[in-house]
Amino acid sequence: MTAPFHSLQAVQTPALIVDEARMQRNVRRLADHIASLGAQLRPHLKTVKSLDAAAQILTKGTGPATVSTLAEAQVFAEAGVRDMIYAVGISPDKLERVVSIRAQGCDLAVILDSPEQARAVAEASQITGAAIPALIEIDSDGHRSGVAPGAGVLIAIGRILQKGGAELRGVLTHAGESYEVVGKEAHARFAEQERRAVLKSAEVLRAAGLPCPVVSIGSTPTAHAAQSLEGVTEVRAGVYAFFDLVQAGIGVCELDDIALSVLTTVIGHQRDKGWIITDAGWMAMSRDRGTASQAVDQGYGLVCDEAGALIDDLVMIKANQEHGIIAVRAGSPATLPDLPLGTRLRILPNHACAVAAQHHRYHVIPSQADAPLKVWPRFGGW
Amino acid sequence: MTAPFHSLQAVQTPALIVDEARMQRNVRRLADHIASLGAQLRPHLKTVKSLDAAAQILTKGTGPATVSTLAEAQVFAEAGVRDMIYAVGISPDKLERVVSIRAQGCDLAVILDSPEQARAVAEASQITGAAIPALIEIDSDGHRSGVAPGAGVLIAIGRILQKGGAELRGVLTHAGESYEVVGKEAHARFAEQERRAVLKSAEVLRAAGLPCPVVSIGSTPTAHAAQSLEGVTEVRAGVYAFFDLVQAGIGVCELDDIALSVLTTVIGHQRDKGWIITDAGWMAMSRDRGTASQAVDQGYGLVCDEAGALIDDLVMIKANQEHGIIAVRAGSPATLPDLPLGTRLRILPNHACAVAAQHHRYHVIPSQADAPLKVWPRFGGW
Repeated sequence: MTAPFHSLQAVQTPALIVDEARMQRNVRRLADHIASLGAQLRPHLKTVKSLDAAAQILTKGTGPATVSTLAEAQVFAEAGVRDMIYAVGISPDKLERVVSIRAQGCDLAVILDSPEQARAVAEASQITGAAIPALIEIDSDGHRSGVAPGAGVLIAIGRILQKGGAELRGVLTHAGESYEVVGKEAHARFAEQERRAVLKSAEVLRAAGLPCPVVSIGSTPTAHAAQSLEGVTEVRAGVYAFFDLVQAGIGVCELDDIALSVLTTVIGHQRDKGWIITDAGWMAMSRDRGTASQAVDQGYGLVCDEAGALIDDLVMIKANQEHGIIAVRAGSPATLPDLPLGTRLRILPNHACAVAAQHHRYHVIPSQADAPLKVWPRFGGW
Repeated sequence: MTAPFHSLQAVQTPALIVDEARMQRNVRRLADHIASLGAQLRPHLKTVKSLDAAAQILTKGTGPATVSTLAEAQVFAEAGVRDMIYAVGISPDKLERVVSIRAQGCDLAVILDSPEQARAVAEASQITGAAIPALIEIDSDGHRSGVAPGAGVLIAIGRILQKGGAELRGVLTHAGESYEVVGKEAHARFAEQERRAVLKSAEVLRAAGLPCPVVSIGSTPTAHAAQSLEGVTEVRAGVYAFFDLVQAGIGVCELDDIALSVLTTVIGHQRDKGWIITDAGWMAMSRDRGTASQAVDQGYGLVCDEAGALIDDLVMIKANQEHGIIAVRAGSPATLPDLPLGTRLRILPNHACAVAAQHHRYHVIPSQADAPLKVWPRFGGW
């Protein structure tokens, strides 16, 4: 089901378009799955960075939520979200802002993976006389940050926090490497790896007499594929609300689940080369080439007509700052359609988080057939 | 010469930093070179998108300037720039905004490469009773848009404009392919190719009795390498004010000419892997990997200390949304320096236009030793 076609004629190009019906379907799908497994969903708002979009995603207006910047934490706290994790390793200089946001009545927790960070969090807690909650990040798949599952340093970190006046809130992991494998079975293995990594770590903490109330896992692929969440209290995911070609490429969604696209206008042709030139370059699409390493490289995106229907094998093959080049996929028998000057198209992006960040607002095709187009402002920065 | 070191302690990371002394040196270098060749420099403001930065770059406050979006045209027109070219092929739906900006007293010209566009420009000129000036884009190197140098369609386009009530302002080309070759000699050949392409096209128009007052070429590599601008009236360039690793990689500048960097904080370590984790991910650096295809792949950027001094063979090898991973360059004998939690670093970017677009403001280290840090707001959008 696609949202009914609304004329986008009043929207100047390039512009970011949301298909609200698809978005709502995506949001329901994951919410139902996580609820059926008995855990809590903690949506990551780094993809949408919008109060209006967050209102569609959050299970309650007060949270829980995950954020990737303190700018997000600040905006969502001011809008009434009361339960957030800032899921990027805390640096000491950011604690003053964390304390300030917490003082507004928002239970903002930080994450960390070293005794040095724990000491800084404990010190800030002591100075302000209010315990800052922290989760210890676990490295379940070698992707990025975190301590090894069950490592002895967990206890050292936990004791620094608890004895130092901070709060050990729990453990957290993110299977970033799950994006590199294809199919539900492979993602389910990563989900189970996430689960075992945090459970093992929680056991180590609890065996040492330390608290570990929150056991948090999550990535969009593992959240959808998880078979059991026993022992896990919550699951985090972000890009699932919009989906994108990277997620479609690894089998987490279908192309017609992708709720985000960039509206663009044909501004020229190089007919000898089979090129159509548009006004959506990398400034509108981002430089993300996430499908380049997948089985099917989708260039800078797949081309749809203005109503959102895919045009057979038409790909955005190249991007300059404000120019896109569209052509038939190499090796395809498809012929280049006649798309005259002024034709409007929509491009499905590689990576929703990256393309959305290039824009100041979403133009939303509403899920109700008779409703007008909506505009959802976005914010950015740190 | 580097700007004197100012403490950046008050700046929250990640943040975009400009070394004003380097920027002023870059601006002077190209201005002097183009003046010595007897042409006019028409700086491209798509890189900086800032009134404060533009004030340093424009030869006069009223222009001339080049822009890549009508949002830029609008902002700079309101700030008093009176002579601009919107250097992306015009689409008919954008002409209303062009007319509106021109009505504010700004001589905004458009570019085009087809009779269809010329008819739309002529029609808008007739409707409004004011001739819209247009330059015909010439394809000097197969990079993107434009008609073949000297092609017969030039005359058709020129006649549609002139007879239809618009204004044929001249011809314009951009040697985008000059970015793909290394060294001044190679860039000089592209500059000469640009020059011959527009001269040949101007001759065809003039021989047909059509006007061609403006003969415009330009790209940062060709602008610096041009040996003769005979017959050329103006040169466009944009990224030269900041420079970046892509430009350094093709020999247009040295590393210590790069005036733009991203300030970041160390937030963790994976010592077994030789990784330092920072808070500058692709959201702060952009996804641009422009050096990936060059002789030396600089990852997501080269790492400097907070004062801007390069750290030997330290490279940002990987980027997640809000995490950067720094490591010693593969194969280098250098050892990973001890950079504790909280250490501040600066990353030189692949592509200045792309990294700047990820930020809302520049933090400027002033060229005067005793002056305080400055903030230059940026804008974006279309």
